Formats: sequence, C-alpha cells, structure tokens
Amino acid sequence: MKALRKMRPASGAQLESIGVPEIGPQDVLVRVRAASICGTDLHIYAWDPWSASRIHPPLTFGHEFCGVVERVGEEVPIVRPGDFVSAEMHIADGHCRQCRAGQRHLCQNLRIIGIDLDGCFAEFVRIPGSNIWKIDPAIPEHYAAILDPLGNAVHTVLAGEIAGQTVAVTGCGPIGLMAIAVARACGSSTILATEVNEHRRAMARKMGADVVLDPSQQDVVAEVLGATEKTGVDVLLEMSGNPTAIHDGLRMLRAGGRASLLGLASQPVTLDLVADVIFKGATVQGIFGRRMFETWVQMTALLKSGRLNLDPLFHERLALDRFDDAFKMLQSGRAEKILFYPNGTPR
Amino acid sequence: MKALRKMRPASGAQLESIGVPEIGPQDVLVRVRAASICGTDLHIYAWDPWSASRIHPPLTFGHEFCGVVERVGEEVPIVRPGDFVSAEMHIADGHCRQCRAGQRHLCQNLRIIGIDLDGCFAEFVRIPGSNIWKIDPAIPEHYAAILDPLGNAVHTVLAGEIAGQTVAVTGCGPIGLMAIAVARACGSSTILATEVNEHRRAMARKMGADVVLDPSQQDVVAEVLGATEKTGVDVLLEMSGNPTAIHDGLRMLRAGGRASLLGLASQPVTLDLVADVIFKGATVQGIFGRRMFETWVQMTALLKSGRLNLDPLFHERLALDRFDDAFKMLQSGRAEKILFYPNGTPR
Amino acid sequence: MKALRKMRPASGAQLESIGVPEIGPQDVLVRVRAASICGTDLHIYAWDPWSASRIHPPLTFGHEFCGVVERVGEEVPIVRPGDFVSAEMHIADGHCRQCRAGQRHLCQNLRIIGIDLDGCFAEFVRIPGSNIWKIDPAIPEHYAAILDPLGNAVHTVLAGEIAGQTVAVTGCGPIGLMAIAVARACGSSTILATEVNEHRRAMARKMGADVVLDPSQQDVVAEVLGATEKTGVDVLLEMSGNPTAIHDGLRMLRAGGRASLLGLASQPVTLDLVADVIFKGATVQGIFGRRMFETWVQMTALLKSGRLNLDPLFHERLALDRFDDAFKMLQSGRAEKILFYPNGTPR
Amino acid sequence: MKALRKMRPASGAQLESIGVPEIGPQDVLVRVRAASICGTDLHIYAWDPWSASRIHPPLTFGHEFCGVVERVGEEVPIVRPGDFVSAEMHIADGHCRQCRAGQRHLCQNLRIIGIDLDGCFAEFVRIPGSNIWKIDPAIPEHYAAILDPLGNAVHTVLAGEIAGQTVAVTGCGPIGLMAIAVARACGSSTILATEVNEHRRAMARKMGADVVLDPSQQDVVAEVLGATEKTGVDVLLEMSGNPTAIHDGLRMLRAGGRASLLGLASQPVTLDLVADVIFKGATVQGIFGRRMFETWVQMTALLKSGRLNLDPLFHERLALDRFDDAFKMLQSGRAEKILFYPNGTPR
Repeated sequence: MKALRKMRPASGAQLESIGVPEIGPQDVLVRVRAASICGTDLHIYAWDPWSASRIHPPLTFGHEFCGVVERVGEEVPIVRPGDFVSAEMHIADGHCRQCRAGQRHLCQNLRIIGIDLDGCFAEFVRIPGSNIWKIDPAIPEHYAAILDPLGNAVHTVLAGEIAGQTVAVTGCGPIGLMAIAVARACGSSTILATEVNEHRRAMARKMGADVVLDPSQQDVVAEVLGATEKTGVDVLLEMSGNPTAIHDGLRMLRAGGRASLLGLASQPVTLDLVADVIFKGATVQGIFGRRMFETWVQMTALLKSGRLNLDPLFHERLALDRFDDAFKMLQSGRAEKILFYPNGTPR
Repeated sequence: MKALRKMRPASGAQLESIGVPEIGPQDVLVRVRAASICGTDLHIYAWDPWSASRIHPPLTFGHEFCGVVERVGEEVPIVRPGDFVSAEMHIADGHCRQCRAGQRHLCQNLRIIGIDLDGCFAEFVRIPGSNIWKIDPAIPEHYAAILDPLGNAVHTVLAGEIAGQTVAVTGCGPIGLMAIAVARACGSSTILATEVNEHRRAMARKMGADVVLDPSQQDVVAEVLGATEKTGVDVLLEMSGNPTAIHDGLRMLRAGGRASLLGLASQPVTLDLVADVIFKGATVQGIFGRRMFETWVQMTALLKSGRLNLDPLFHERLALDRFDDAFKMLQSGRAEKILFYPNGTPR
Repeated sequence: MKALRKMRPASGAQLESIGVPEIGPQDVLVRVRAASICGTDLHIYAWDPWSASRIHPPLTFGHEFCGVVERVGEEVPIVRPGDFVSAEMHIADGHCRQCRAGQRHLCQNLRIIGIDLDGCFAEFVRIPGSNIWKIDPAIPEHYAAILDPLGNAVHTVLAGEIAGQTVAVTGCGPIGLMAIAVARACGSSTILATEVNEHRRAMARKMGADVVLDPSQQDVVAEVLGATEKTGVDVLLEMSGNPTAIHDGLRMLRAGGRASLLGLASQPVTLDLVADVIFKGATVQGIFGRRMFETWVQMTALLKSGRLNLDPLFHERLALDRFDDAFKMLQSGRAEKILFYPNGTPR
Repeated sequence: MKALRKMRPASGAQLESIGVPEIGPQDVLVRVRAASICGTDLHIYAWDPWSASRIHPPLTFGHEFCGVVERVGEEVPIVRPGDFVSAEMHIADGHCRQCRAGQRHLCQNLRIIGIDLDGCFAEFVRIPGSNIWKIDPAIPEHYAAILDPLGNAVHTVLAGEIAGQTVAVTGCGPIGLMAIAVARACGSSTILATEVNEHRRAMARKMGADVVLDPSQQDVVAEVLGATEKTGVDVLLEMSGNPTAIHDGLRMLRAGGRASLLGLASQPVTLDLVADVIFKGATVQGIFGRRMFETWVQMTALLKSGRLNLDPLFHERLALDRFDDAFKMLQSGRAEKILFYPNGTPR
C-alpha cells in the first residue's frame, strides 16, 4: 500500500510502498477514507527539535482520519467490516493511576499512533479495538476526518461551564476556530477572539465570534474589559501558546473565572500569579488530548444532531502524492484543514 | 393606580383603584411595562384548594414582569430612575442555612411577591433592592417580561451537563417549551418531547424539538429507546407533574442519567425506585425557582447575545382590563404567554 | 479444589470438590485467602424469588474476598504471582455508552462473578485481569476481604460533598455501619443513625455515630430536625430499603440536601415528590456498585493511611465447611461480617 | 476604649484611647473577647511597601477575633446581645457580577475590616450584620478567635476532592499547619509536608502530616514521587508563596491533579506551563479569602462536632498592651498563633 513516511531524521517526507499492517486479535484494520493534517505533522515534516527528540524513522505519520473497517480481530466486539469509523490515536495503558480512575487521556504510559506507531497517511491503518470509534452515517465524511482536533476544542470548551458565559479565545488557528464554533453551539454568550493573522481573524468571524481583535493593533485587554462592564470574561480559552496572549488572557479573565490552556508555549512563561490567579480566585486548567471517551460522546452527539457548522475550515482535498503542496499551503497560515484521500479523492 | 386584585376568597378578580406603593430606603418602585400571566395566576383566579390555603385577600397578584425604575430608596446602589428592570420575585431572608451558603432559592423563610405580597398586575410594583435585576436594553421587552418562567426553564436545563447530551422533555406547557429552546441553544443533542395536547406538540417543534411524541397514541418509552440505540436519554426534563409522564420519563432515562423534576404532581407518586433510580445510578433533582442570581446571569447573557428565539410563545398583548379574556384564553391550553400592559399597550 | 456451590434450584448449598479454574491470556488465577459473606449470598442460600430468577445452578457463589495471585495470563501486565489482591466482581463490557464515558459501574451488559460466573467461596477464583486490584501490604487481610461492600459504602458517602456536612444514615446493616465510619473519617459533622435492631444500634455507636435513634420508639424526623435547628441534615445515606425509612429520610433532609439511596426496597415506594424533593430542591441519587475504579482508589488510600477502623464489624473466622453455621449467624442479624478461609484459617 | 492603632505611616503601633464605635441600623457592636495576630498584621506593624500603599493611618488594625454581641442595629435579625460571635472581615458589595452569582469572596469592591476600616485589636469592633457569624457555644473560645485563617485553610483544602487523596503541603506557616489538620480530618490519605524551618517541621508532625521534608536538605520532588509509586500526589496545597516551592509543588503533582495556591509570591513566577500544567492536565486554583459563607458552614460544623484538634497552634495569651512582645515572638517564626485579650485575659 502507499504510505507517506518520514524515512530519515531530516526535513521532508516520502511516499513509499509498504505492506498492509497485520492485525492481532484485539485490533482493527481500517481503510483510510480521508486524513487531515495537524500542526504536529508540519513539525515532523520540517523536523524541528521536538520531532528530532521524539520521532524514530522510519514512520508513517498522520493521526487525524476517518475510514471504513476492512478487517476485525476476533476479540473486538464493537465493529464489523464496512462500518464507518474514526479513532482516538492516544493509546492508554489502561492500568496506571490515571487510567483506572477516569483520566485515560492523562495515562502515564501514553503512546500515540502517527507519532510512536505507524499512522494514517496511508491506505490502511491499524487501530487497537479499544480505540476505535464508530461513527453515525449522519456525520459528514470531512467532519469525521477531523475528530482529533475537534476533540481538543470540545475538551477545552466543555472543561467547565460554558452556557451563558462570556468567552475570550486567544489564538485562532484551526483548534481555536473550532473552539469558537463549539462555544457558540453550546450556549456561550458573547465570544471575543484575538488573533494577529488577518486571514484567521476573518475566519474567526465566520465561525461565530462576536468580536474579533488584533493584538498587534489594539489593547485587547482594555477592549475586553470595556465589552464586559470592566468585569472581564467568564472563560478564557487559550489556544495560541504565545506568552503575551497568555498574559493578556489572564488579565481579561474576571475574578472567579476559568482559564483553559491548550496552546503550547515553546518556553517557560512568567506569570503574575498573585494578581492574575490567586487574588482573582481563578481556575487555570491544563488541557491535553480528548477525554476518553466523554469528549467523543459529546462531540459526535453535537455533530450527529447538526449543531455545528465547520464547513469554513475545509480547503483542499488532495491525493496523498500532493503532500508537498499540502504542507506548503498550511505553513503559509492561509488554510485551516487540508484533507488527504489515500484511497482516491471523492468525485 | 389600577391594580388587578383578588378581593375575596372566591373565584375571579377585580380591577381596583389603589394607592401607589410607598417604598422604604432599601426598595425600588417600578412602573410596570409588561406583565405576563403564570399558571399560578390561573390557580389564584380560579381559587383552587392551594390558593385557598395560601392566599390572603385582598392581594394584587402577578409575578412576571418588566418595567422602568420610577423611584429608588436611598440605600439601593444598583439602579437609577429610568433603568429598564425586571426582578426575582422570591424574597429570601438572607440568613438561613440555605441563604448563607449559595442556595437562596431554597430559603427557609421565602416570601413571594404576587403571592404573599402585592404583585405586578398593576401600574406600579414595589421591589426590594436586593431583588431588582437590571436588564440590558438589547433584550426585547416581551422577553424581559417572562424572565421568571424562563428562569425556571434555564435553571432546570442547566442543573447538570447539557452540551452533547440527548434530552427528553415530558410536558410542553410554557416552561417545557422554553426548556426545549434553552436546551437547544446550550448544545443539547437530540431533543425528544412528549405532550398530549396537539397545539403544544406543534409548538414543541417550533421551539426546536427534534422528535415530538404523543403519549396518548404512542409507546413513548419504546420510541425514545429506539431513537437512542436502546440506551435511553442522558437527561430528562420533567415539566408536566403527570405521574405517568414521571414514570415514563424515568424509564426513558439511561443508566447514569440525570432527571430534573420541575412539574408539580397533585398527589404522591409511586416509583419503582430500585429499577428506575438505584440500579440505574440515576440522579433525580428537584428544581424550584431560579438560582439567585446564577440563573439570572446565565439567562440574561443568553438573551443579550441573541442565542434564544422565544417569539413563538407570545400571543395577545392586552390592557389590564381584559383580564377575563386573558385567563380564558390560557385556560383553553391554546396560548402560551399573554402580556398585560398596565400602563398602556405598545403601539 | 473445594468450593461452596449452589447445586440445585432450592435452598441450601453444598461443599463440592471441583477442578481449579483454567485461565485465559487476560485472566488471573487467585488463591483465596479470606472470603466474606454478603446479604446477597444469604438470598442465594435461602433461594428467594430473586435468586430463583437470576441464578443458574450449579454455581460457586461468593463475591467478597482477598487472596494471593497464583497464575497470570500472558496479556495481564499489572500483577505477578505472589501479589496480594482483591477484585471488582462486576465485569463491565467496556464498550457501551456508560463504559465509554466514565460509568463502567453502570454497564448495560454487566456480569457479576459469584452470581453469573463462579465466585470466591472456593480455594481458587478466576478474575479477568482488568478487574484485579492489587493491594498494599499495609492493608490488613480482613479489611481486604470486604472491599466489595466497603466500596458500596465509600461510593455512597463520597457521591457528593461530605466534609463539614451533617449526615443521617437510615439503616445500620453492615454497609450502613461502614458508611458511618467512612463519613466520620471523611470529615462529616454530626452523624445521626436510625435502626430498629438493638444490636445494630450499639454497633452504630461503635462505628462513630454521634446520635443513634430507634424508629420503632422515637419520632426520628422530629429528633433530627431538633438536632439541626429545624433545618434538617445536609446528607441522607439511605441504607435500609425500608419504605418508612425512605420517607422519614427525605423528611429529615434539609432543602438543598443530598439523598443517596443504596438500600433496595422490595416493592415500589410512594413518595411525596413535591414536598420532599421538588420544593426542597433535593438531589436524590441512586447508588449501585462501586465506581471503577475511582472508589477503589479512594477506599484503598483511606485504608492504607490508616484512616478507617472497621474492626468492630468482624465476628467469626471459619473454614469453608462451617458454612451452615455462618449463614445462620448472619440470618440472626447479630453479626456483621463473617469470614471464610478456604485455604485454612489463620493461626 | 483601648485600641491598638497605626497612627503614622511608619513602623510600629500605639495603644490609644478612642471612642467606642457607633453603629447603624444594619450593624452589630461586638465586645472583643480574643483577637489573633495574622501575618498581615506583622506587615502593617513593620510598614512594608504593601502596607504603605494600602493602609491609611490612623487605623485600628486586627481582623481575627471572637467576642460577645454588645449592641444590635434594629435591622439585623440574626443575633442578640450576649450571643457568642465571630465575623467575616471581608465586606462584599453584594451587587457585582461575583457577588450576585455565588462568589462574594471575589467581590469587585471588597473592603476589609482591619485594613480599610477599623479592626478588632480593640475592646469593641463594629461589624455589618450581614458579616456576623454566630458561634455554637460548643466551639472553644481560642478556636473561635482564628476562624479567619482557619477559613483560608478550609477553603484551600475543600476547593476540590480531598477524601482518599494523597496531599502535599508546601509551606508550614500557621495556615499550612491548619491545612494539614483539616486535610487529615477530611479523609485525605498520606499527607506530605515540606518546610525549611525546623520548628515548623516539628509542628507539621504534630498537626498530622505523615511525612515531613526539608527542602534545604532533601530532593523533595524525588521523595514525594518515591512515596507515590512515581505518580505524584493528587492534591498540592501551596501555602508558602516561595517560587521554588511552587515549582517543586507542581512537579510533585500527578497528572490530572489539583494545585490550590494560597501562598503569595512577592514577585512574578516563571512556570514551565507545558510540562507542569498542560501536558499534566493539572487544575491550578487561586484561593483567596473564605467562601461566604460555605466555608464558614463547613468550618464551624467541623469544629462543633470536634473533628479538628488545633491546640498545638496556640502560644501566648496576652493583654493588648503587650503588643510589642507579641509581634516579636511571631517575627521569630517560632510561634504560630498569639491571642490578645483586649477586655482582660482569661483566668
């Protein structure tokens, strides 16, 4: 089968022909319908320091996808060949402290398909049966291909109360944009988004932000305070990892509010803990992955009942051999989600 | 001023001319713009056994309204003459166990304006300053007049997780219908409603129910289980008080689900606690009033940001002297909310 | 090996000699050290209607135990021969709606070892690897033998806030008594217990109840209200299943309180839902089993750090062949926990 | 009356003779029985930069006390002359966003008695009726005098799950020591405390810490990981404000754990947000004041039922004129709580 692989510890990738994965009694083999590119895939492609420390070539990468079940291990009860599926790509060990008490997404021995094991930029991918997620046919294929990042957004938004809450979203990359749509669908009150990239600001409006601010031109803290009777927002969704955005975000937050941090800072961040967290009685949450499988239940229920419109996020739909074009488009910051179709693009 | 009053312990009401209420240093006098009729007002009008045991004529009744501040006691800091307001009509004592720890809506010495004290079916109404609620001018007047029952609906829907949850609403009177709209606005997944009255079933569809069932014609439990892969719904919102609906509702609920009960049964109800609550690990919540003032914050934030469409609920807008017509229309079960305009109907 | 078995659909049991269970790659074979008798075992022994409808002889019964790992299936990573263990005897399917989202104890396809599969009243018992629970050697053997019912008690007590809360425990059978000890260890304020059996009332005092009441002689609702400034208790732990106790319990509960129901009524119960649940804003929770494995984490952490004294609960320690004596002692209501030692009693 | 006052913007204090406070209709006048010295009082006495920016002499300081009601304003329903009382010294405005929705402790217009208004180092103190807290006579006088800092400890410990949780307490000043006792009384599992001061380490053991570590001599992170099977603790209670302790504390915390921060750092703190918060899925809470009045309910319920032993914390009991001795003893770090008796020391 064809697979997009990192063959050497260097930038770039190669389309290779390799064997279809063999499956064990607890595995599922999935024929990939559509796969989507994550920012992490850009890092692997470019071979940044994080990739160099974590990735062991050769590796088929890619971890956002949907597909159709091709073959099912004999001990897997929940799917049959022909079923439409996606998968949680974080494999938890099932028996550490976190796994045993409702926090499998924080497993102490986590392995990730597409990072530590061969991923989904290929015609077929092998998935452990406990990670497979059957998808209602009412959910469109292109939505089903991005459940991994949508799950990050849903996890972040629903990590606390959201209905009737004012929200600031700092950073409008793909997951920030999804978070705007999710917050709106889940009854948030006014959504204020900050973003320096003009294209992304336009996207934020399309996804449902009520107010969109440019931190390179505006005093975003003052704007948010002005829009909230000097109180600040109830909820901060920090999706940028940018230290300035983190600072500003905490200053925008009202006393007693919730800050959910998903964006990854590339270095330590200096915080005024007393003024911005302690005296404020703020709750700051680190958000990682998706809750297994609470987030999947919430996310697919929202999609199945048609409560989310994510269409503006989708750009090109490409065959796997156009990977260089795809990565370039994404690196430009002018596209959100690009889909690969390893088994042929839709007519 | 004109006031609609219960003058004698018997059915009916009278439009009387009485003095404008005097206010103390901690009170606010409000010129009523629009007042809405509650089911409780129908009971008072008809003088049912509950009314006979609770109401002490003479009394100006009515407890759903909005208006404009006319005069402000000197110790009230939060409003000024001319402000657009509504009010929480439940007066909590502020110092009982419940009041002191975040449950003022469950005060041990609760008094209710329009039940225990003169209400809002009048040109003016006196409100304690701690109960006044200032309203953003972005909220339409007719919505502002029904914050009391809307608050019941918001309190019920948001008494637990709602985003991405399947929901059954049993009983589609005015508050059940509002609950459908609120659940939808707050990201519920599929909403299934049950109601015997044909007009109300049509209204349920208008308010956003995905599936509407008639318990007099259908096996509603089987229908709901069929629509949820035999699992049952995540959330039951019981808005009818009907014993059959309560039974059916609990049987529709999935194991581990939440049942929020607002509807008032007229007598004790026999429950299969083991099968329907204990083995199910269900959480059954009694819902009363509105949280002071968490519910008000959520509700007005939803309205201000335009997330709720309640327009289908409104029927006639009448001068106060048309009270007999108003009560008759509501008793017919073919109208949801009727508004009085004690100071003149809008052009 | 020796095993205590129900051989026919009739009252009684037989000590049989059968083969040691064979294990699969995901199973663990445990040499039983101590096994404890549950009220359910009394029902099976006596062959009541529930047993007749659920149990399919021949069956080795018993589902409370601790032991030492004898043999480990090759796919089980978490234990090794010689490890001291107990087990969750409820086997969840792992893939239904409840299992996938944090409620495995409410699995739609639950099977129970000792009820649906051969249990622990035997020299050896087979346990699926995902159900095994490794025990810190600091935990005494007799405590490790009763983690199943202790888990019921911990699950009930910790189903909501408990620190600084006043508590009523209605019914002081073994799990009610454990609940008293757990509530006290977890910072409850005043604990009031009700129980008609004199021996059990004395036990309630030993386990830490501050006030012990006899519903056959006292107006327990009036007593509880008197002890709480007419407010009622913050938390009701209903451990009896008795309809009068359920009624009284709800009337003892303060507005806004929590009622956690574990006791199983033998028939439907008539409740004044409006007065006792809705107007009160009460939360009524059905409690079943133990949370997998949150309850196990909490329970063994409490035991390991020595925060719980359960010694008063233990009576006889018997060889398996004294089963008739054991069941008779328990049926008399004068003993709480009796332990079997299938591999020999301790010196 | 006698009052200990800051008369000038400089270090020191003076015992002055001033008039007894006059009260309004919503106030209570309390005859101070015992007053306790807070670390904040040391800052005011020493006139550090914070004091210079916040305090406006002349001011009677002191904000921890108990006493007996002397006189009651006519609009205060909850106390009578002779009642034993303490008070919440943070005065909330009652109408800001936080006050109106259950977070009065985070009021936007907070004023503090003893900081912004005359405090309790005097024979009498004036308290608004809404801030008075009636105390059960079962609670000892010296405990009643320290409800303010005990409330900080209770608020911190009970800001999340504590029963069956492993706990690290970083910093064993008076509030850290109280937190140890509270965590233990509320069912925490193993408590590990870190503290550089030898006297305080000995106190930590007395208050119930299971393991006490010296960060100046030991690798406290390694010790805590070693004691928790490399998992880390479930709960961090940060009571020091020391940047190293904050870092170490977050590194001791298990993935998915809770960090509650009460200690105040004197400057911004640099955090490895990605490793210590985000990838960990940690929840970091700022803790300020006491919840009004949830914390008071919990705290006094714990005290009334005798669940807390705080006796080791108390040192000298002095007349007000020995204030110089008192401040010196506390500055030495060898005493926890010292009580003033403005109306005469107990026999």
